[in-house]
Amino acid sequence: MPITPEQCAEIDRQRAFAAETRRATVPALEEILYRPLPVLDHGFVRVIDYMGDDGAVVQAARVSYGRGTKRVSEDAGLIRYLMRHRHSTPFEMCEIKFHVKLPIFVARQWIRHRTANVNEYSGRYSVLDREFYIPAADQLAAQAASNRQGRGAVLAGDEAAQVLALLRQDAETAYAHYQQMLNEGDDGAKLDPERLGLARELARMNLPVNFYTQWYWKIDLHNLLHFLSLRADPHAQYEIRVYAGAMLDVVRRWVPAVYAAFVDYRLNAAALSATGLAVVRRLLAGEAVTAESSGLSKREWRELMVQLGRADA
Amino acid sequence: MPITPEQCAEIDRQRAFAAETRRATVPALEEILYRPLPVLDHGFVRVIDYMGDDGAVVQAARVSYGRGTKRVSEDAGLIRYLMRHRHSTPFEMCEIKFHVKLPIFVARQWIRHRTANVNEYSGRYSVLDREFYIPAADQLAAQAASNRQGRGAVLAGDEAAQVLALLRQDAETAYAHYQQMLNEGDDGAKLDPERLGLARELARMNLPVNFYTQWYWKIDLHNLLHFLSLRADPHAQYEIRVYAGAMLDVVRRWVPAVYAAFVDYRLNAAALSATGLAVVRRLLAGEAVTAESSGLSKREWRELMVQLGRADA
Amino acid sequence: MPITPEQCAEIDRQRAFAAETRRATVPALEEILYRPLPVLDHGFVRVIDYMGDDGAVVQAARVSYGRGTKRVSEDAGLIRYLMRHRHSTPFEMCEIKFHVKLPIFVARQWIRHRTANVNEYSGRYSVLDREFYIPAADQLAAQAASNRQGRGAVLAGDEAAQVLALLRQDAETAYAHYQQMLNEGDDGAKLDPERLGLARELARMNLPVNFYTQWYWKIDLHNLLHFLSLRADPHAQYEIRVYAGAMLDVVRRWVPAVYAAFVDYRLNAAALSATGLAVVRRLLAGEAVTAESSGLSKREWRELMVQLGRADA
Amino acid sequence: MPITPEQCAEIDRQRAFAAETRRATVPALEEILYRPLPVLDHGFVRVIDYMGDDGAVVQAARVSYGRGTKRVSEDAGLIRYLMRHRHSTPFEMCEIKFHVKLPIFVARQWIRHRTANVNEYSGRYSVLDREFYIPAADQLAAQAASNRQGRGAVLAGDEAAQVLALLRQDAETAYAHYQQMLNEGDDGAKLDPERLGLARELARMNLPVNFYTQWYWKIDLHNLLHFLSLRADPHAQYEIRVYAGAMLDVVRRWVPAVYAAFVDYRLNAAALSATGLAVVRRLLAGEAVTAESSGLSKREWRELMVQLGRADA
Repeated sequence: MPITPEQCAEIDRQRAFAAETRRATVPALEEILYRPLPVLDHGFVRVIDYMGDDGAVVQAARVSYGRGTKRVSEDAGLIRYLMRHRHSTPFEMCEIKFHVKLPIFVARQWIRHRTANVNEYSGRYSVLDREFYIPAADQLAAQAASNRQGRGAVLAGDEAAQVLALLRQDAETAYAHYQQMLNEGDDGAKLDPERLGLARELARMNLPVNFYTQWYWKIDLHNLLHFLSLRADPHAQYEIRVYAGAMLDVVRRWVPAVYAAFVDYRLNAAALSATGLAVVRRLLAGEAVTAESSGLSKREWRELMVQLGRADA
Repeated sequence: MPITPEQCAEIDRQRAFAAETRRATVPALEEILYRPLPVLDHGFVRVIDYMGDDGAVVQAARVSYGRGTKRVSEDAGLIRYLMRHRHSTPFEMCEIKFHVKLPIFVARQWIRHRTANVNEYSGRYSVLDREFYIPAADQLAAQAASNRQGRGAVLAGDEAAQVLALLRQDAETAYAHYQQMLNEGDDGAKLDPERLGLARELARMNLPVNFYTQWYWKIDLHNLLHFLSLRADPHAQYEIRVYAGAMLDVVRRWVPAVYAAFVDYRLNAAALSATGLAVVRRLLAGEAVTAESSGLSKREWRELMVQLGRADA
Repeated sequence: MPITPEQCAEIDRQRAFAAETRRATVPALEEILYRPLPVLDHGFVRVIDYMGDDGAVVQAARVSYGRGTKRVSEDAGLIRYLMRHRHSTPFEMCEIKFHVKLPIFVARQWIRHRTANVNEYSGRYSVLDREFYIPAADQLAAQAASNRQGRGAVLAGDEAAQVLALLRQDAETAYAHYQQMLNEGDDGAKLDPERLGLARELARMNLPVNFYTQWYWKIDLHNLLHFLSLRADPHAQYEIRVYAGAMLDVVRRWVPAVYAAFVDYRLNAAALSATGLAVVRRLLAGEAVTAESSGLSKREWRELMVQLGRADA
Repeated sequence: MPITPEQCAEIDRQRAFAAETRRATVPALEEILYRPLPVLDHGFVRVIDYMGDDGAVVQAARVSYGRGTKRVSEDAGLIRYLMRHRHSTPFEMCEIKFHVKLPIFVARQWIRHRTANVNEYSGRYSVLDREFYIPAADQLAAQAASNRQGRGAVLAGDEAAQVLALLRQDAETAYAHYQQMLNEGDDGAKLDPERLGLARELARMNLPVNFYTQWYWKIDLHNLLHFLSLRADPHAQYEIRVYAGAMLDVVRRWVPAVYAAFVDYRLNAAALSATGLAVVRRLLAGEAVTAESSGLSKREWRELMVQLGRADA
């Protein structure tokens, strides 16, 4: 369960609040504001605040005195133009703030994106919760044989059972020892009145990286789309990809015209190298190009054939 | 006049809009939303959008599920603590967007602050307006004798009159020639039907840097405060300092508790070097320290005496 | 002339210096170190310092204890892989520092790239030189008819002559008045002993944006390549494109394997939108796709046909 | 032991290399180039490359054509001036690259500094080493009573022994299970030929955050000094402070004039709030100010008295 009843109540109280504003407002996003969107076994993504909408992109591109928007179709056309020509600054004019709960090893990949603002829950200052990530059975994949950075077949039977048992048992033990070193029980009371208890900033070093942490994360739309194009990609690790998926849904609600342009020009677009482009031209001219005569490496040739619909992925 | 009646009407239309939101909302800032705050002879600063309030700072610092705020005094105490200990990330959780009209030479200083988002009016794409900055008489300062980067006495009489005349005349001529090269009049019509007209991206190179440009500028609160601490400083050039002043007023409306902490711990605070601190300790111990025995340079000694209230600035 | 004999002598003195180092060193770049590479009529680009080489990219990618490089072909293969899969961090491990002299309006476009370090010559502190950019005759282009942000035919005859005369005359006048306001001649002496002279930070506002400024500019290789991919592009204004061209030559000398991968995967690569990719697949399947049945806008269709070699640019 | 004999040999091979360069070179830094400076029980900091020296700071500040340096005393004076007036850009003109081995929980604090380039060893791609951090006995501190984010007295006797035993035992178990899940022994061979072995990107999630990771980390001098001012501070956690200490020594070798200015104006400097400054002025005027009449909170009063040498820390 990602959140407790107390946290749920806090969220409901905040959702009950309403005020009038002159700012750009997006009803479809207001609808889910503050609500945890569940990800993995204990994680979530919640939208905490946002600035701007589709109109804010065109308003900035036009450096307008007023709203700056024209007909919806004209605005969408401008947004497509800006996305196509890689104008990044108008998309930086929208901003969004998330509260995310995520395993530490996912947080370590996530934080590599530097153009964002982050406030993380502090294990120096506070005691961490007993919550850790255990993969679902269908995500218990073997090491890929062909690709050092990927997953292969799903483990089965005994091997799967043992992995799950080890992960669970080590996490439980680590947390029990964490409390023992802190000399502090679930209720915050001292376990042994004679002991001092190790400093929080030291005791936490015993916890494995599948433990959950959480943070407030704020980013502009341009950099969010860049993050999503990398992390929603099939090459990204599954455990971060599911967070990217949840945030893509948020973007669709928030700025539908930007989302549509992003899908066409980035997410589902194809990048052809100069050599790859030459192959396409030769094919279109009727030439029978082969892997050997293409000038591409075997892997690049195969990838190109998949892109062009001439081979299966 | 900073804005035209048409622009005024656009702004009024936008101000008339109101929507309901669950987001943190600041009535004192809503009051002036979109309104141009005049700066210099033709410039302005307008707040276009904002995210967060004082509460958003403590909410992020606490990584809260709900609003995260407690009693006002407790929140203000936490904000003071964060400011004092140079915690920057909670202040990054608020964001503001301005529309600014400013002379090009001010824009060139301003843009040096890189941690912000900018969309500038394009002289490649559009024709620039006939608007340039002429200093007020009391700002027509001579070069400082003691400081290569500062202003001295105000020019008077003939010298002042001639400077103003030259500035005005060169700006007028430059704009007239700009239009002539573009082959385009105030109404956008061709001046000479036989001529092609020079490309906008080239013709604009004739305009001096006292011409006004404008941009949308978006920044988080932490970086805004950093900008203001440098640009509201007496060492900053007057023409950018007045913009910083206008934005300080905006910050006071927007996040009053952060503003108060900022004034105490940054704007009016003192930085003592290790050597300066040693001088203060010796003075408090009753020693008669002199410039010579202080270990400070003459300039640093004088500045320290001013800080300590023992000499006039 | 981009530099004076005195500056030339200073550069020669610096080039005469040699020291031993254990650092990665690139002879082909050492050869041109400090030498001004001329750009436009008075501008230049000079390499002042650099860190790393092709090997530094693979060394970082492998987080090596030693040099980290293997056979040249293996290293080049890894560099191609990293470029193809948009791994940016290994390319950030090389750094280069330039001294650039460029017109102010070019500097204003350039500075929009924020992930770089800049130290600009200060017009507050120092008197600016009498040097301004006048386009060569073949660059005196008319406004493009089809594209608001581009150039059309080259101006000829009278119109061209008049534009050049206006540009030259306004720049000369502006500089003469700049000196008059400063009350300072070419030799730095007072023009009129009775006058105070206007502060430098004010007087400079009279100079048009075709005057030259200069700066030290330092950037990592990843961000430099991003800058070059945007500014060497045909859509970039000619006056910044020529600087990008000069720097591309520097990159080729400095990191030849990275340069080759960059040309194949970025500079000469093609980005197909999802819709564009579908068109290519249909064409390859033998379908007779037309602009109308393509799902693309007219402009996108035309651009795709040019990319595929089925129409002229 | 931080490094193996094989790694040692690789480092020695790289140190044996020497080339001639025209670049600014610092013999005192060349001396230790590539050598691991030990930190904690298995960690280190190694300088891999550097750009610039003290002279590069003044060269950039002067936007020089040549070396840009004058007499050593004049250069040092300019550097002090730049540091005192918080000019950041000249210090950005020097760059340094480190190879660092550090526990994951230290890496998680470190990475919060965003203005740097990082390449981390990948647990998705490679198998991690059996190396984890165990605090020395004198660093086994209890939670501070007065400060939620600090350390108190050092644990003794049984409690200390048990903490050390738990940390060691959990780390050993976690690594053994990591190998078991990978189905891979120390020699890289399969443990059980019947099993597939869990993907590396999943198996690593079992390792606690006291395991060591390593990365290449590159940063400019301005941002490095900012990092050091925060992480060499007594409020920083001991385990990151020792890394900051090692890097301070590197800075002293590399740019001695910048280092001296940094110590005087930052590291050992004092920041007085407006209220604190008023207290100092009143004290100097002979007034008997008390905590109550000071306008300061109790904690701020105590800190001020310590700063002024009127109370012990």
